[in-house]
Amino acid sequence: MGGSAASEKDCRAAFCLGRLIAENNWILLNGGRNRGIMEASAKGAAKAGGITIGILPGKDYGEVSEYIKIPVLTNMGDARNIINVLTSNIVVACPGGPGTISETALALKSGRPVILMDFAVADIFHSYVKKNLLFREKSPEKVIDRIKAILTNYF
Amino acid sequence: MGGSAASEKDCRAAFCLGRLIAENNWILLNGGRNRGIMEASAKGAAKAGGITIGILPGKDYGEVSEYIKIPVLTNMGDARNIINVLTSNIVVACPGGPGTISETALALKSGRPVILMDFAVADIFHSYVKKNLLFREKSPEKVIDRIKAILTNYF
Amino acid sequence: MGGSAASEKDCRAAFCLGRLIAENNWILLNGGRNRGIMEASAKGAAKAGGITIGILPGKDYGEVSEYIKIPVLTNMGDARNIINVLTSNIVVACPGGPGTISETALALKSGRPVILMDFAVADIFHSYVKKNLLFREKSPEKVIDRIKAILTNYF
Amino acid sequence: MGGSAASEKDCRAAFCLGRLIAENNWILLNGGRNRGIMEASAKGAAKAGGITIGILPGKDYGEVSEYIKIPVLTNMGDARNIINVLTSNIVVACPGGPGTISETALALKSGRPVILMDFAVADIFHSYVKKNLLFREKSPEKVIDRIKAILTNYF
Repeated sequence: MGGSAASEKDCRAAFCLGRLIAENNWILLNGGRNRGIMEASAKGAAKAGGITIGILPGKDYGEVSEYIKIPVLTNMGDARNIINVLTSNIVVACPGGPGTISETALALKSGRPVILMDFAVADIFHSYVKKNLLFREKSPEKVIDRIKAILTNYF
Repeated sequence: MGGSAASEKDCRAAFCLGRLIAENNWILLNGGRNRGIMEASAKGAAKAGGITIGILPGKDYGEVSEYIKIPVLTNMGDARNIINVLTSNIVVACPGGPGTISETALALKSGRPVILMDFAVADIFHSYVKKNLLFREKSPEKVIDRIKAILTNYF
Repeated sequence: MGGSAASEKDCRAAFCLGRLIAENNWILLNGGRNRGIMEASAKGAAKAGGITIGILPGKDYGEVSEYIKIPVLTNMGDARNIINVLTSNIVVACPGGPGTISETALALKSGRPVILMDFAVADIFHSYVKKNLLFREKSPEKVIDRIKAILTNYF
Repeated sequence: MGGSAASEKDCRAAFCLGRLIAENNWILLNGGRNRGIMEASAKGAAKAGGITIGILPGKDYGEVSEYIKIPVLTNMGDARNIINVLTSNIVVACPGGPGTISETALALKSGRPVILMDFAVADIFHSYVKKNLLFREKSPEKVIDRIKAILTNYF
């Protein structure tokens, strides 16, 4: 998850993360739009041959990233954020705005582990840090290490 | 789409349809539960090596068919019916109850072609028959022929 | 419930029904838009001093009927149909298209009594007629009588 | 909005806020459950004769607060949070957990003014403080003053 508007640096990290997710044979799921962190992470995964799923807020194919292989059209606007996090085994939150914060919050509420990649919102969720449900990492490589550790412990 | 409770005959037809969908390299999407038409069609597609997506009404993996490779958890109950039909390029409605009728109705309203496979509800949607959006077929093989004809004409 | 496009005759009946609902001190709930059966029934209820609730498919006040006192904005498109029927104790389906048929189907599936007012779709739901969950009436007055009978028996 | 689990002090403040909302002839809308901030604020408003609307996550009347006069049943779980904020002209966020944070985030994203009543999450939304969309107040009385100021400026 991450902002539909994002800096070049954050998009590069998201691209790299998407690539590593595909190289680990995991499925990448995001909000599916052709913008920001969504586009960058889907592009990274798709270029590495991975499966990419997008849970779209609208019903028009025009907003779907070309790197999303399986677009799920909800036409439910931001209500689809809950689908994003329920469907994910692990959520990685990249820098974003209130949409990404809502997904972080809903994921934690739903018991999904969340890894913040260079996204400084942990303070208001500190009880989940203590519960080992919320993690902070600085780079795509560290995020992948964390995912592996979570998969070993949780699943 | 089709009933979560279904006759053996209807399940056999749904299994066969799922297999043919996979053999044509199309993706099968349904409601994802481990019951009735959903289970049967997913089983047919999965056994033939196809990709199967389930849009689940709940959030628990316990209700997911083992033949669904990609479960999308919505926790939105029957509100997820609209996602089923918006996400499908073509909807096949197998025999079912009011849930399946609601999906047929929402698909037609959303401009998605619907093929009724041995499901006798066309009368109340007759204006869509005239518009060539609603079709009636008797067997999985005929449904596949109809899908091919629609794909040629619409896409 | 009923079509957003509706004949003058059907709108007159819906207006009358809305008035009678308000005069019986019941709350009128519909899809809330400023069109067809929704506008007519809300107008009838509001002019008689009743409370009117609209469950809107969008998020813009521009599509809200001026006769809706409490607009609930969902921005969920047709997924809001399930909210319409779950929130209603009794559903009256006036003539409409696939949207109204989907609401009739979802209401019956959810165990809500449905009264069809001059809307000929009972054939495909015949099992619910037998279960005394689906009723057919010809006029607003007959619908009100039926509501009173249901309220006596069910609640 | 606020936690379904809340301290006695926070519930007292929510009760007082509900009462003041009703005394100002505004409609109180919340998540509708019979717990925490929802129950307390609805009770305050209902006891003062106000209209109270609850947007419920489930479909069972058993979880509805007795102080909610108009329960809207969504059966959409946390997806209903977006309805809560879209339907509100102004959102007051009382102390809560991730659900309340998600509502704060979604409200700001949707352009709804948010007043945090003794709820310390403003830091991650600081850009909205600068835009005069997010406000911090300490008491129900101060929240009411802020609502009046917003109503004067925005509507």
